Amino acid sequence: MTTVADILQYMDTLAPRYMKMDWDNVGLLCGSRTAPVTKILVALDPFEGVCQEAAEWGAELIVTHHPLIFQALKSITDETSIGRGIQILCRNGISAINAHTNLDCAPGGVNDVLAARLGLQNIQVISPAGTNEEGIPYGLLRCGEVGEQALDDFLADVQVALGCEGLRYVDGGKPVRKVAVGGGSCAGAMLEALHAGCDTFVTADIKYNQFWDAKDLGLNLIDAGHFHTENPVVAVLAEKLQAAFPNVEVKISENHADCMKFY
Amino acid sequence: MTTVADILQYMDTLAPRYMKMDWDNVGLLCGSRTAPVTKILVALDPFEGVCQEAAEWGAELIVTHHPLIFQALKSITDETSIGRGIQILCRNGISAINAHTNLDCAPGGVNDVLAARLGLQNIQVISPAGTNEEGIPYGLLRCGEVGEQALDDFLADVQVALGCEGLRYVDGGKPVRKVAVGGGSCAGAMLEALHAGCDTFVTADIKYNQFWDAKDLGLNLIDAGHFHTENPVVAVLAEKLQAAFPNVEVKISENHADCMKFY
Amino acid sequence: MTTVADILQYMDTLAPRYMKMDWDNVGLLCGSRTAPVTKILVALDPFEGVCQEAAEWGAELIVTHHPLIFQALKSITDETSIGRGIQILCRNGISAINAHTNLDCAPGGVNDVLAARLGLQNIQVISPAGTNEEGIPYGLLRCGEVGEQALDDFLADVQVALGCEGLRYVDGGKPVRKVAVGGGSCAGAMLEALHAGCDTFVTADIKYNQFWDAKDLGLNLIDAGHFHTENPVVAVLAEKLQAAFPNVEVKISENHADCMKFY
Amino acid sequence: MTTVADILQYMDTLAPRYMKMDWDNVGLLCGSRTAPVTKILVALDPFEGVCQEAAEWGAELIVTHHPLIFQALKSITDETSIGRGIQILCRNGISAINAHTNLDCAPGGVNDVLAARLGLQNIQVISPAGTNEEGIPYGLLRCGEVGEQALDDFLADVQVALGCEGLRYVDGGKPVRKVAVGGGSCAGAMLEALHAGCDTFVTADIKYNQFWDAKDLGLNLIDAGHFHTENPVVAVLAEKLQAAFPNVEVKISENHADCMKFY
Amino acid sequence: MTTVADILQYMDTLAPRYMKMDWDNVGLLCGSRTAPVTKILVALDPFEGVCQEAAEWGAELIVTHHPLIFQALKSITDETSIGRGIQILCRNGISAINAHTNLDCAPGGVNDVLAARLGLQNIQVISPAGTNEEGIPYGLLRCGEVGEQALDDFLADVQVALGCEGLRYVDGGKPVRKVAVGGGSCAGAMLEALHAGCDTFVTADIKYNQFWDAKDLGLNLIDAGHFHTENPVVAVLAEKLQAAFPNVEVKISENHADCMKFY
Amino acid sequence: MTTVADILQYMDTLAPRYMKMDWDNVGLLCGSRTAPVTKILVALDPFEGVCQEAAEWGAELIVTHHPLIFQALKSITDETSIGRGIQILCRNGISAINAHTNLDCAPGGVNDVLAARLGLQNIQVISPAGTNEEGIPYGLLRCGEVGEQALDDFLADVQVALGCEGLRYVDGGKPVRKVAVGGGSCAGAMLEALHAGCDTFVTADIKYNQFWDAKDLGLNLIDAGHFHTENPVVAVLAEKLQAAFPNVEVKISENHADCMKFY
Repeated sequence: MTTVADILQYMDTLAPRYMKMDWDNVGLLCGSRTAPVTKILVALDPFEGVCQEAAEWGAELIVTHHPLIFQALKSITDETSIGRGIQILCRNGISAINAHTNLDCAPGGVNDVLAARLGLQNIQVISPAGTNEEGIPYGLLRCGEVGEQALDDFLADVQVALGCEGLRYVDGGKPVRKVAVGGGSCAGAMLEALHAGCDTFVTADIKYNQFWDAKDLGLNLIDAGHFHTENPVVAVLAEKLQAAFPNVEVKISENHADCMKFY
Repeated sequence: MTTVADILQYMDTLAPRYMKMDWDNVGLLCGSRTAPVTKILVALDPFEGVCQEAAEWGAELIVTHHPLIFQALKSITDETSIGRGIQILCRNGISAINAHTNLDCAPGGVNDVLAARLGLQNIQVISPAGTNEEGIPYGLLRCGEVGEQALDDFLADVQVALGCEGLRYVDGGKPVRKVAVGGGSCAGAMLEALHAGCDTFVTADIKYNQFWDAKDLGLNLIDAGHFHTENPVVAVLAEKLQAAFPNVEVKISENHADCMKFY
Repeated sequence: MTTVADILQYMDTLAPRYMKMDWDNVGLLCGSRTAPVTKILVALDPFEGVCQEAAEWGAELIVTHHPLIFQALKSITDETSIGRGIQILCRNGISAINAHTNLDCAPGGVNDVLAARLGLQNIQVISPAGTNEEGIPYGLLRCGEVGEQALDDFLADVQVALGCEGLRYVDGGKPVRKVAVGGGSCAGAMLEALHAGCDTFVTADIKYNQFWDAKDLGLNLIDAGHFHTENPVVAVLAEKLQAAFPNVEVKISENHADCMKFY
Repeated sequence: MTTVADILQYMDTLAPRYMKMDWDNVGLLCGSRTAPVTKILVALDPFEGVCQEAAEWGAELIVTHHPLIFQALKSITDETSIGRGIQILCRNGISAINAHTNLDCAPGGVNDVLAARLGLQNIQVISPAGTNEEGIPYGLLRCGEVGEQALDDFLADVQVALGCEGLRYVDGGKPVRKVAVGGGSCAGAMLEALHAGCDTFVTADIKYNQFWDAKDLGLNLIDAGHFHTENPVVAVLAEKLQAAFPNVEVKISENHADCMKFY
Repeated sequence: MTTVADILQYMDTLAPRYMKMDWDNVGLLCGSRTAPVTKILVALDPFEGVCQEAAEWGAELIVTHHPLIFQALKSITDETSIGRGIQILCRNGISAINAHTNLDCAPGGVNDVLAARLGLQNIQVISPAGTNEEGIPYGLLRCGEVGEQALDDFLADVQVALGCEGLRYVDGGKPVRKVAVGGGSCAGAMLEALHAGCDTFVTADIKYNQFWDAKDLGLNLIDAGHFHTENPVVAVLAEKLQAAFPNVEVKISENHADCMKFY
Repeated sequence: MTTVADILQYMDTLAPRYMKMDWDNVGLLCGSRTAPVTKILVALDPFEGVCQEAAEWGAELIVTHHPLIFQALKSITDETSIGRGIQILCRNGISAINAHTNLDCAPGGVNDVLAARLGLQNIQVISPAGTNEEGIPYGLLRCGEVGEQALDDFLADVQVALGCEGLRYVDGGKPVRKVAVGGGSCAGAMLEALHAGCDTFVTADIKYNQFWDAKDLGLNLIDAGHFHTENPVVAVLAEKLQAAFPNVEVKISENHADCMKFY
């Protein structure tokens, strides 16, 4: 019988715990290592709706990218979304596992998937934080090459590849040849992208002054949305889990989608 | 129908939130304000055994002195006692309310009950932190008088009154006339007791150097146990809740007792 | 002869220094109080392009909302945009004045202008920080009413009123009746908007988790862009300066515009 | 002629300074390295009574486990016990040497003596902090084995071996086979004892929540008193000093005893 | 019989404790409140030589400006000057009282005496920190007027008045009319002196950049030495103590003098 | 054509950046790496007068020891000396380079020049911080030997060698044989000088308690002035720059001198 502990152990091969940032919270954040698992629901976020979907489907485990608990909790009541989510999980005996910055950094993780989805060639880790036991470098950002093209052409490709309703960007004044990617909020690492020789950086949650900094630095900076830059890893994660645990039913959340819209 | 919110509101009259210490965590720490309540289990601590007892008895609410969550939580798993307790509560839809340092300080709270149980006369608040809306002072410690007696006689009375298996103490070299009390770990407030003119201080969790400090200061210092100095408030709390909510069944935990023994 | 000191003094009546946040940097950040002023260039930001435009036009002063120096400087070289801007100003004897969070908070400042531009009625300060010498409250956010309408209709109005190329938003599930506004990055004050009874909040630089928080809270949250929510104050500032100093030529920057585009 | 410096040097072989905790204060805390020594008084604590006894007996040196000064001093007056102690020492030209956490950790120190006194077999250091120059590991806690027995039987042995008036304990639900010891306040290291495979932990100054933690962890936790768990080292220290300095008179304090009593 | 407590009480009328800086250490720093006093040695510093002089003369008390203990002590050995001083005091039963920043600030204290010694007229407190119970302002710096004169003339007067071997100064480019004084290291308060309308500031321990700052500000800044700017208070203190305690012998240290020389 | 970048690169061979203290600010603090250089003004400090002299002489670069910006700047106005200096530099297109603690520490830097100027023999680095790429040690202080002499004789030599108007010193009670030097404010490193076997230490900005500490330690401590202990490096720096860049005109500031005088 597959247990939560088995899934945890497998997740640790995909996204080893030593690859996470110091401040992060990953692993088994709710439930029980000894619980048997027959159904796993996979999603980007462990929000209330995802917990509810898992309960209704009869899953014993949710596997997500973002952590169920980020700010440590001083209460668990139905007055907060996180409290309601935990109550649903506990009431239905559902465990919650996540891999966050360890999955961002891991070979084959969030950013490798994002780079591949954008069709980058010759993908490399920017400023590797270390190497894994097989000598493969890991770290937050990836970069890769595309055939030289105008920024507008690249924007069109990004929108299609990631399924974004809209994009926000600043034109750094250069054609697109070498692209850095960092799913989620990575605009603070702009200089690393530049120092790696990139002309273009795809990330999310970009602020006003960051767009201006990019313009000053001559970097094309593209905000493709937190959800759309990270969500591609979910399908890959689901596939890998299904392959590793053929007797367990693995499903991607059917309801979870970006709540943010463009007008 | 009585709800958790009704009980919370009533608790706030017994132990107003503004009387708590800054670092404390009190109020509704688990569950739902809107949940109906027909059975309340009252105990000193919201430990796993108490949660289990509540579930078995069918209570929808536990009311305790110590908080369910003190150190903020980064996970809720069955690998910790607190995690197991929360899972039991959530699985059974049980809410958890507590009044901690606000109940220590409140008029009629932990320390007034302790002082009365010890038979002190002319009970006063030591260094009041403020006054409530009726002008009654509140604060952590209480002091009161006993007929002058030898320390040994007073020790015998304390043991009987609180039902302690044993006591630890240092003899400050004075007969007992004016006694300070602080349920739980209050030995750090030894100088306040002395400055209030007390010759004797009853509290708990006393450390080696604190016994020596008391001896140097000429203060009889008695460790009557954390449980036994605070538990008397539980019965009073249960009575008051029962009186205020006659249609709700209120019960004191039958299993919860001090785990520490003397040899 | 009008001097920089005269303009500073007038600016202090529009946006008194005591209204600024503790961490802010406002007032005369470059140049000389005694310099004569015949031409003032007004802009949202004191970026390099604005400094260059001022030099070419022959202005002796730029007046902006954002500060020339925010992070304190350890060098002033042409390797950074801010260094180049300061070198242009010093080379051409141009002073730089700004009013930042004091102008956000001041009656008639950034947020009153924004609220008026959006056609809000019965405009109020949310959680006032104090009152000015005339007893008028000041503070960061404003709220006001609109005729009840669907969110989509309101979004269309916002886009037109502020001239935004695009908007990002989350639908809180309510029609629009009472709207809070906070130019720039104010999403962190979401709860204040909610507590003031607002169903809708217009601000900028909104992050992924903030959109989700708003959805959980049932608040329509609209990101209309940092530039577009703050820039309306520039025209008002220019008008007021022109009216107060009729012998000085006041011009709004012709080149400065949002660098961020939508795709 | 033996001097204080000679004793210090010898003490450093018994309890090298590099074995102490960072926050600790050890070595020569009062007096003079060059003072001749003919009489040494040895005690657990350098309290006022011990200083007085040293003065009356004519000792030039006291050697203790606890430091004369722990909190750094801003005054030395007769209003505090520590001030009176220092005044007695200075008035009588008595030096004060101590070995505190370095003696706790050293091979043959506080915890090895405690383990031996309890009759443990196959004594090991738990989580060694390092090894000394002879390759012998050192560290805070020790563990060792006893013939399997009921907790009650072990409690009886502890009481006799250490001469305790009473013991406090929690029953972890296991028979006693492998015992960890940490003289003084070591309950915070409970998990290390558990991870070393111990079923029982003898230490002191245990608090309410620590007893409960032990119960949850299934660990027999015994509070045998700060004095009684550390004092055994005093006799050993006196013997070793006497052997090393046959021409010096070495005496254990006749007055110093635990001030805490049981009732 | 006069006791140390009597002197302490009197000192508190001259230099009340509430006038001291937060970080300061003043009052009875060694000895005993109950000790009888027949001889008091007064000096600027409680250095080893002063302690020795007190012992040889048979004083039971030293009264100084600087504190015996400033950095809190972790040991008292003859390897440090402060350790030797304390050992001399304790061995001879000598108490040590000081008034430091409270005497700097007090009406009639260090800075009033310094201002008077320099012949300033119309002496005022600069930026008073408060008023004493008689409504007289107190604070660190004093200012006063002199007949307008060249800086050189004033320097000559300062040297004679304070008995300085030499002076260091920067010429601020102004004649001397209004002078600020701050005994000891007060150059950090240069701007307060300037804002009080002073053209000249007499203090000590002035650093390179502070001389340049003064020159930039157009302030004559004079370093008359830490000793020579503070020592005048010693004679006044001795006189006042003698007048208040006619039966006690009060003497100024005969040996203590500035150790710093000019070449 | 020589550029600022060429000078920077050369300066980095004289005083490599890795030799600076963590808190220091060195290198190009104003101007442009690409600016051509035909005239360099060299001075100890980049004060306003030096900036003005550079402008009048037509220099494109000033090279100094002290940094143009030390405390990071939040404004650049003509109300401060540093603001005026930067405005002069920017207005005249003058760059500013400095080497501060890296030049103090570098072989051949401030302290080697000072030691040589004082005629010390067998000059060594005290407590080297490391070695450069040629294996030569670097670090803050230097020491060296002189023929044994009375302190008075050495003082006379120091005054002549450094051209000091006056000296301040304390007599440590020893003849002069081995001398430590630390240009500027290095008195805090007194114990390092002592541990290196020095009897005498020449530095600057010495405070009252530091003179007394030196006396207690038996160290002759000499304050030869911040300017006079550091300025000797200026001539050496000018010579080296001239030799390295024969086509550039290099001049030592004619106006910059110590502002502090003795009386």
